[in-house]
Amino acid sequence: MRPADVIINADYILTMDPDLTVAQKGAIAVRNGKILAVGDADHISRTFTSSETIDGAGKVAFPGLVNTHTHAAMVHFRGLADDLPLKVWLEEHIWPAEGRWLSPEFVGDAVELACLEMLRSGITVYNDMYFFGDAIARATKKIGMRAVVGVGILDFPSKSANTPDEYFANAENFIKAWAGDELIVPNIAPHAPYTCSPENMMRAKKVAEQYDVPLHVHLSETQWEVGEIQKRYGRTPIALLENIGFLDERVLAAHCVWPTDEEIGILAQRNVGVSHCIESNLKLASGIAPVTKMLKAGVRVTFGTDGAASNNDLNILSEMSTAAKVHKAVSGDPTALSAKQAMLMATRWGAEAIGLGGVTGSLDEGKSADIVLADLDKPHLTPLYDMYSHIVYSMRASDIDTVLVNGRVIIKGRKLMTADEGEIMARSSEWGRKIKEADTRC
Amino acid sequence: MRPADVIINADYILTMDPDLTVAQKGAIAVRNGKILAVGDADHISRTFTSSETIDGAGKVAFPGLVNTHTHAAMVHFRGLADDLPLKVWLEEHIWPAEGRWLSPEFVGDAVELACLEMLRSGITVYNDMYFFGDAIARATKKIGMRAVVGVGILDFPSKSANTPDEYFANAENFIKAWAGDELIVPNIAPHAPYTCSPENMMRAKKVAEQYDVPLHVHLSETQWEVGEIQKRYGRTPIALLENIGFLDERVLAAHCVWPTDEEIGILAQRNVGVSHCIESNLKLASGIAPVTKMLKAGVRVTFGTDGAASNNDLNILSEMSTAAKVHKAVSGDPTALSAKQAMLMATRWGAEAIGLGGVTGSLDEGKSADIVLADLDKPHLTPLYDMYSHIVYSMRASDIDTVLVNGRVIIKGRKLMTADEGEIMARSSEWGRKIKEADTRC
Repeated sequence: MRPADVIINADYILTMDPDLTVAQKGAIAVRNGKILAVGDADHISRTFTSSETIDGAGKVAFPGLVNTHTHAAMVHFRGLADDLPLKVWLEEHIWPAEGRWLSPEFVGDAVELACLEMLRSGITVYNDMYFFGDAIARATKKIGMRAVVGVGILDFPSKSANTPDEYFANAENFIKAWAGDELIVPNIAPHAPYTCSPENMMRAKKVAEQYDVPLHVHLSETQWEVGEIQKRYGRTPIALLENIGFLDERVLAAHCVWPTDEEIGILAQRNVGVSHCIESNLKLASGIAPVTKMLKAGVRVTFGTDGAASNNDLNILSEMSTAAKVHKAVSGDPTALSAKQAMLMATRWGAEAIGLGGVTGSLDEGKSADIVLADLDKPHLTPLYDMYSHIVYSMRASDIDTVLVNGRVIIKGRKLMTADEGEIMARSSEWGRKIKEADTRC
Repeated sequence: MRPADVIINADYILTMDPDLTVAQKGAIAVRNGKILAVGDADHISRTFTSSETIDGAGKVAFPGLVNTHTHAAMVHFRGLADDLPLKVWLEEHIWPAEGRWLSPEFVGDAVELACLEMLRSGITVYNDMYFFGDAIARATKKIGMRAVVGVGILDFPSKSANTPDEYFANAENFIKAWAGDELIVPNIAPHAPYTCSPENMMRAKKVAEQYDVPLHVHLSETQWEVGEIQKRYGRTPIALLENIGFLDERVLAAHCVWPTDEEIGILAQRNVGVSHCIESNLKLASGIAPVTKMLKAGVRVTFGTDGAASNNDLNILSEMSTAAKVHKAVSGDPTALSAKQAMLMATRWGAEAIGLGGVTGSLDEGKSADIVLADLDKPHLTPLYDMYSHIVYSMRASDIDTVLVNGRVIIKGRKLMTADEGEIMARSSEWGRKIKEADTRC
């Protein structure tokens, strides 16, 4: 008998491993935060001994979901200014609110709320782009969640820095401070081709290579961006970044709503990870990314929530469901973007796209125990024919019962174990009250 | 002091009345199943006396949501055959399963599950089209929900009848049996122009007029249907029904995905209620209905879930959210289909479209007390800026805490008060087990 720290039983286990193995009446043995073995419950109980057991009767286990693009701290602006033209939303509400309120304290409080919301909907790791990286990383670590935290780089001043040199100094300091952390991967995030010059893009790439960290950008989000980049540089955004030598498998490109066929080829060839943020793209009327085309071309498409100010939640279950349905209608093909494909994009592919393919994204031996248990004993999950369909088309965030990150139980019986939910929400409500008072519209 | 049976307090009350009145720290007085008054909590407590109070601290109250098109009993086929071409889905899975399993007992068990799922997501009334109307009506009444139950009419034999005469006899008997019921409104439902001849359509209309009941049809759902009707009758589906004199304000037309501009004008002019079933239309790749155009033309567009076999749930909160987002992207206008508009469509307009505008759909004095209380104390509902946005873009079915239908508390603390949830789910799981065994794919 081999020792384990905990054995997790479940009626069904979707491993999302390369063979898409599904175990019925399965179990997972975990030790030192890592998965020792996954398989038949009888086999696991005969092979491993453990003082702690998690009983997943009536539940399905699957890998923690991966949110490949968000601005977690923007959760404080959720619903601040909806149903408005993009320009009014940004220039009259979001930017003034950011300009007035952003601080390490604000960001820390907001990130705790965002982590709570994400964990309770089954997300165990998120890829962030914002400012005040230390505050983001500390809050995430306090809650016990995993994140890739990208320090934003802009050509122009913001609350976090005044000059490109200052942005890059912040980023390098952040990367050095958090290198080797168990939960936080630091990275560098040149915002977008329209806010970051080709020089600053490539300077960011050099930093990423020097410290061997991922890159995170916005890319080809709106038709306005495509026209603007064309005007400035004579190329479309993805072609521009290809031309300067920016694109490779280190890059996670958020949105990619308007790639040309040629650009789709570039994304595939360079093995760029794409974060498809369908709900944000729909709500801001940015457009509908050609996901079925990208998938057919071999592009690694994954799911992101974007910030809660433009979505308005942090819920990958819902992104999967929306995307799997919308792309059927748009392509006129009810077999497009199947439930199984959507689950792959939300788990293993997502982890690979943000540089964590060896760490999380599937229930494989040796990977971190980032595991979700969802309750199947619900009216909207009755009866049960196909588990992938069930998760993608019918499951809700509220079905997520238990969440482990790195082998530690963070959510149990839908409650956060690592901090006081009431206090987190009270602090955020207080920020909301102040923001509302100062906003012109509310 | 006037007597009330119950006084409901809530932090916010969205009445959805013609002025869209919102009461903060509001209350609703209810007597004999009807709303006596809605207003400021202090005023209500000074005016009415009641032995029972419902404490809605931390909650928002709004009218029960209206599901204007479903086939409730199809909940037993949820997820039976997803991600397949429409023809394979229907001909190899759904129709064989219906042919084998449909019976009053099957339908009754399925409808109990569907009512449970709908109530727990805040729906208090649904407009159904299926077979075995007595079983549907009895199960709905047992649970305590409100429904308009339409007996399906087809040109060809099915499990429920062999000839048009038999279908019409069933429908008339059903209408006579349930006329005047407090919760169940019987109606007649000629299935669609491609399954029901113009003669049978008009025969159904005559029955509807004779008994003064609503009509419920599928209309212009797929491009195939448009082509088929054009071929058979030389007109597109809506133009055909206009030509034979079928369309008026008594008609609820489900889908309307492919109306021409001229047909949109007809729908508006005849005051036909349209049930927009966005999630079903997306998932079956039927297309995206021109909702912003229809709204602009003055068509009364409302929301339907369609059956759970093609969706895969019965959740109007999610239909609102999906529709409000998709139509922004499709129209390229982030102000299209606002949260307030979506709420109107899901409440007052929905009730009017199914002939229940005088009974439900808003919290107006004299209407039935069909009321939902949703819990605001949730991470994904923090902070709060705008209540309509909050409900449409962020609220989940699991936030629905309390539901009253006709003044009776049916859901309390997210639990069904009128039947045993476990027993309902167990019966449906057993049907599911049998269906799965017999299906070719599972």
